[in-house]
Amino acid sequence: MTTSTHQTQIIVDSDVPLVRIVREFDAPPEKVFRAHTDPELFALWTGPNGYQVRIHHFDCRTGGSFRYVVAGDGFEGGFRGCFHEVRPSALIVQTFSFEGVPDGVALERVIFEDLGDGRTRLTSTSLVDSFEGRDAFVASGMEVGVREGYERLDDLLTR
Amino acid sequence: MTTSTHQTQIIVDSDVPLVRIVREFDAPPEKVFRAHTDPELFALWTGPNGYQVRIHHFDCRTGGSFRYVVAGDGFEGGFRGCFHEVRPSALIVQTFSFEGVPDGVALERVIFEDLGDGRTRLTSTSLVDSFEGRDAFVASGMEVGVREGYERLDDLLTR
Repeated sequence: MTTSTHQTQIIVDSDVPLVRIVREFDAPPEKVFRAHTDPELFALWTGPNGYQVRIHHFDCRTGGSFRYVVAGDGFEGGFRGCFHEVRPSALIVQTFSFEGVPDGVALERVIFEDLGDGRTRLTSTSLVDSFEGRDAFVASGMEVGVREGYERLDDLLTR
Repeated sequence: MTTSTHQTQIIVDSDVPLVRIVREFDAPPEKVFRAHTDPELFALWTGPNGYQVRIHHFDCRTGGSFRYVVAGDGFEGGFRGCFHEVRPSALIVQTFSFEGVPDGVALERVIFEDLGDGRTRLTSTSLVDSFEGRDAFVASGMEVGVREGYERLDDLLTR
């Protein structure tokens, strides 16, 4: 159970095929960053409730790469990408694709912004090469997975 | 000196911040692909005439990464990225950035299309997150570097 009242904002850009997700956390950037780069922590909070994340490999450093499998509710699918740049407690730039749609590759940027008082604003953007692809991604129900995942991340950050 | 009559087409997309470069080569996909994945060959043809390419690392496989330095005519700059997917003789999906503008990261896709009779059509797309960034890239004089690089690649492919 989460006691957080933070809202997850999902903003569809009007000019370019990009989605921007903004969320605040009651933890400092170092801790939010670690939950994104440590594979054991990442697997605990990523994805919708009731799904399991199995890490295949996850080397979150500049030039590294990742692959994990999400399973639950009759679904099982792999997700993979490479890390273009990882700046500690500040920025992750990476690629991302679902193996079910291997040519639908996104360029993602996660920004960790220090709000002071042990709080962080996380801004995550996802850029693809068509508005149709972007809108299909938004319509896929990703919102539930993002919101539920961030609620589990809230809980993880209180430990 | 090149005897090729192939034109390099550089097409600016009107809907999304993407540039598409199309060029044919008188060599089969396997050979054009190898000139993109073998660091020693890559360094021979990449960039404008009169510039040297020094490979720092270049591991062109799914999950690998690269960095190289281009130097000449008073300029010296690093370029880097990671390889999201490498499908032999068919496709390379990668990130790309110039270290002088570290936050200007592009998602690039290089498609090797077999035209038969030992010929290949190469289509290279570069996607960024703003039209301003895309237009600045096109206006930077990249066209000369691309055209001269592909002319040197023509020569390399005849060896």
